[in-house]
Amino acid sequence: MKTSALWLVAIAAVGGVLASTAPASVSADDDAAPIYGIKIPKGYRDWRLISVAHEEGKLNDLRAVLGNDVAVQAYREQKLPFPDGAIIVRLAWNYVPSEENNKAFGRAQSFVPGSATNIQFMVKDSKKYAASGGWGYAQFGTDGKPADETTLKPCFPCHEPNKARDYVFTHYAP
Amino acid sequence: MKTSALWLVAIAAVGGVLASTAPASVSADDDAAPIYGIKIPKGYRDWRLISVAHEEGKLNDLRAVLGNDVAVQAYREQKLPFPDGAIIVRLAWNYVPSEENNKAFGRAQSFVPGSATNIQFMVKDSKKYAASGGWGYAQFGTDGKPADETTLKPCFPCHEPNKARDYVFTHYAP
Repeated sequence: MKTSALWLVAIAAVGGVLASTAPASVSADDDAAPIYGIKIPKGYRDWRLISVAHEEGKLNDLRAVLGNDVAVQAYREQKLPFPDGAIIVRLAWNYVPSEENNKAFGRAQSFVPGSATNIQFMVKDSKKYAASGGWGYAQFGTDGKPADETTLKPCFPCHEPNKARDYVFTHYAP
Repeated sequence: MKTSALWLVAIAAVGGVLASTAPASVSADDDAAPIYGIKIPKGYRDWRLISVAHEEGKLNDLRAVLGNDVAVQAYREQKLPFPDGAIIVRLAWNYVPSEENNKAFGRAQSFVPGSATNIQFMVKDSKKYAASGGWGYAQFGTDGKPADETTLKPCFPCHEPNKARDYVFTHYAP
């Protein structure tokens, strides 16, 4: 009985360590987003940085845009339209002040990522997604669950005015 | 004469294309930063994302913090102190509103990177940099030129209060 209790404590302790280790990427197993049928690409959190941004208003976030090798190469070579296989991911976190940074700077000026909000993907496949400018769109929660159709329907109409840059808003930050 | 002129136009055109292609990284050849003798590590712009931030005030920038494999692995495994060989780079760009994003969102809320400001590195070598908590510090302009001693002297004193996290301010953004 005493031994079992010790084991439980040991397992709980290991569980705690595992749970507090930062995951490499959110993964969704078999959950595909609606309309475009996109699943979370493996290892997207390891992709290279395209740019960053801050959105005020309801979003109130800090965001990073990463790309797979096809997307980043196209950006760097300023190749438009993006080739099939390009995938762009937008990570976002709640916008929070950093007390410890402010202390170091000696004034309140520093804003950093709080908890993650959601993850959005643009996947280039000029045939499969011909009806939406060659791009499929997806959004997932931090639990890996895909957003519903209602969330995804405005994606293409919003990106459509940006046809001259192959429907992509984000510029590459050197 | 006509042929030469055509060649000049052709060379100028190619030069224009090359100049407008985004570089993979700023490179500094043989220019080492003072005090710690750090050169710009090759390929740092391809490193993985640790986090992002916005600094107000005089800095008024958006920034991204990337790490080499040793640094990112230590972050994900929450390993402190960072192992020797870890390198962290801070990219930064002037903070500018995005007219095209604001148009898409229907309100003024979007801020994106303008021109790059400078690039800062922290290099972990517990023996070489024992006098500064095991880290060497460097800053380079976007032209690859290292900042002077006066710029680098405050680095360690500013990071020193953060000894509990091995002198690193940036947290990993999941």
